[in-house]
Amino acid sequence: MIKARVTVTLKNGVLDPQGKAIEGALGSLGFSGIGGVRQGKVFDLELAETDKAKAEETLKAVCEKLLANTVIENYSIALS
Amino acid sequence: MIKARVTVTLKNGVLDPQGKAIEGALGSLGFSGIGGVRQGKVFDLELAETDKAKAEETLKAVCEKLLANTVIENYSIALS
Repeated sequence: MIKARVTVTLKNGVLDPQGKAIEGALGSLGFSGIGGVRQGKVFDLELAETDKAKAEETLKAVCEKLLANTVIENYSIALS
Repeated sequence: MIKARVTVTLKNGVLDPQGKAIEGALGSLGFSGIGGVRQGKVFDLELAETDKAKAEETLKAVCEKLLANTVIENYSIALS
């Protein structure tokens, strides 16, 4: 079994209202000097596959088809 | 300036209906042998602080107060 973590983040230039809201909230809470907040998603998955190369290939297909919207999002795959 | 990535994941034992929905969707799309899907959140932040220890302390407070619900979620902080 291979455990994998997929991280999906917004591409540069894509507006992130959630991140902006967090920045605003941080200011209200008294945290200063924090900016550039961007929110993304993370997925932990377990694959029955034991071959790392095959697992990575499968995960790429999963990201392209389901987990990420590649028009506006980047994804990265980490196997462990 | 310090860049940081905060990853917030559900604690073990906490139900994750989003993860279950993704598992179902993966099955419908023909991906087999993938289970244990858990969805979390990731936050990228930029701190004006230059001292890594202070930055980590600030980020811990930010996680406890805003980014994570520590009753049901774990968080991890990575500085770069």
